[in-house]
Amino acid sequence: MFRIFLLWKGNNMGKYAFGVDIGGTTVKLGFFDREGELLERWEIITRKDDGGKWILPDVAASIEAVIEKRKLHREDIIGVGVGSPGLVLADGTVQSAVNLGWGKMNIPKTLGELLRLPVRSGNDANIAAYGELWKGGGRGYRSMVMVTLGTGVGGGVIIDGRILTGASGAGGEVGHMQINPAESEPCGCGRRGCLEQYASATGIARLAARRLAADDHPSVLREREHVSAKDVFDAVKEGDAVAIEIGSQFGAYLGDGLAKTASVADPEVFVIGGGVSRAGEILFDYIRPAYEKCAFQSYLNADFRLAELGNDAGIYGAAGLFLAE
Amino acid sequence: MFRIFLLWKGNNMGKYAFGVDIGGTTVKLGFFDREGELLERWEIITRKDDGGKWILPDVAASIEAVIEKRKLHREDIIGVGVGSPGLVLADGTVQSAVNLGWGKMNIPKTLGELLRLPVRSGNDANIAAYGELWKGGGRGYRSMVMVTLGTGVGGGVIIDGRILTGASGAGGEVGHMQINPAESEPCGCGRRGCLEQYASATGIARLAARRLAADDHPSVLREREHVSAKDVFDAVKEGDAVAIEIGSQFGAYLGDGLAKTASVADPEVFVIGGGVSRAGEILFDYIRPAYEKCAFQSYLNADFRLAELGNDAGIYGAAGLFLAE
Repeated sequence: MFRIFLLWKGNNMGKYAFGVDIGGTTVKLGFFDREGELLERWEIITRKDDGGKWILPDVAASIEAVIEKRKLHREDIIGVGVGSPGLVLADGTVQSAVNLGWGKMNIPKTLGELLRLPVRSGNDANIAAYGELWKGGGRGYRSMVMVTLGTGVGGGVIIDGRILTGASGAGGEVGHMQINPAESEPCGCGRRGCLEQYASATGIARLAARRLAADDHPSVLREREHVSAKDVFDAVKEGDAVAIEIGSQFGAYLGDGLAKTASVADPEVFVIGGGVSRAGEILFDYIRPAYEKCAFQSYLNADFRLAELGNDAGIYGAAGLFLAE
Repeated sequence: MFRIFLLWKGNNMGKYAFGVDIGGTTVKLGFFDREGELLERWEIITRKDDGGKWILPDVAASIEAVIEKRKLHREDIIGVGVGSPGLVLADGTVQSAVNLGWGKMNIPKTLGELLRLPVRSGNDANIAAYGELWKGGGRGYRSMVMVTLGTGVGGGVIIDGRILTGASGAGGEVGHMQINPAESEPCGCGRRGCLEQYASATGIARLAARRLAADDHPSVLREREHVSAKDVFDAVKEGDAVAIEIGSQFGAYLGDGLAKTASVADPEVFVIGGGVSRAGEILFDYIRPAYEKCAFQSYLNADFRLAELGNDAGIYGAAGLFLAE
């Protein structure tokens, strides 16, 4: 009886959690209350010197400073969640995060010892997906596939409220699903025809450059030296025919990739995030028809939503590792 | 304290479970002990008259007969697991199983009321996968993708020991992943280029017919009027060049499909079952190279195993819903 009572107290005494999103340039941090309200949000520089050995001590010092400033006790803190680049196994071990300088790194152990607080961690794309499920575009759903269309294409899959981490920490990495083996240019991963080559901001710019080089059809896009993904969807909104063609190509590849993803994950909802998603609902005019053409009928009821948390998805998801449910 | 004690007793008193695998022709049943040993195995006819309304009463009567014969008490039985064709939601509701005559059918409720025992259910392909994980080719793994290569291609995905049921009950239905949009013939589902069209027994026979019609290259397969999947792999084992070409085509499509599946599920192991898997380990000579060509590097450590339980996978998996772990 005594033990049970202690456990019960331990679970309920904490009032706050921290969410940490480690990026290649900055570390974003958030201080949340039990209900998941973001009470404070700040950033520190990601110090990548010396194989990235200062990154977690810097995070710990930054969190200690907030604890001190707010006069919190250790037992007020439920835990510290961390999203990190790279492959992160179920036990929180980062296998290798090249852009931080890290080889193997057990975040819960290392940061937990520095802070003397419970720490959980996961891959940044998965954690961002978890954040969107908890407080963003995926609110109210339990099973979700999120794709983050930025410089690359990140993916996160949530099944029944749980992150699909994967055996090698690469669960839901749909950006490197090969969807066009006929592609002539290599992807950053060395293979050809990955979804990322068509659905990332970089990929859309590449589709645009290709399309514009193919003929002399007039387009507002020709006024620009370098056409970005934003330029393409701005021109789509103006009704530019060439931009619409490019949008359709983007949609065809992404819709196909999401239909293939549905064959495995059968999610309730797809959430589209990242810089490209700022184009808004118009993206779905290009993604959905392609999805419906490629997907088995069981998957046609899936919803499509835009991400809502922007760059804060990572800190929400990280804090959610302790606060969600 | 009293309640806790009762719960504890309830969990531990049962000594046996039943596993039921409902097929379009027969229902397979198994009686298992706590450790998952199959003590008795039998079949009954699937009575599809009257919209399939006799199927569950027949199952109940058959189980009652065993309970009586073995002089068991209700509290000796931990539960009855059931695998069923069709889409089965997480609550055990079959959405529609056309080949049984069923519309919506809640198996746990209906069979549970007939037997006054706990009943759990799931889709037959998922349940078979669960059986292979528990007692077959996937033993020792926690995350697995199983494909059953029979008349069609069934799929089941297990993540961290839990069946991926999916929002519409079609989780892991990789047989209808579209992998060749250039296909001219329609799949049974009405779309074109589904994995099932190349990797099922029927699909392999179709690949063979196409290849043989393409030229007059000599092959032992020309001696047969109808070439089956078994004929193809028998000829592969004899070194027949045309059969090896057909095997390579099969492998290319299936390897591609499994690589795409890995991008979502990142499993520890792929288990290949169904009639086609009787060809043996030689299948992997054709599947693996294609998989390695298509898969992102993180997924290259996945193991490939043959299913081991054959037609009993369903009853094992069904009983496993109560006995596994």
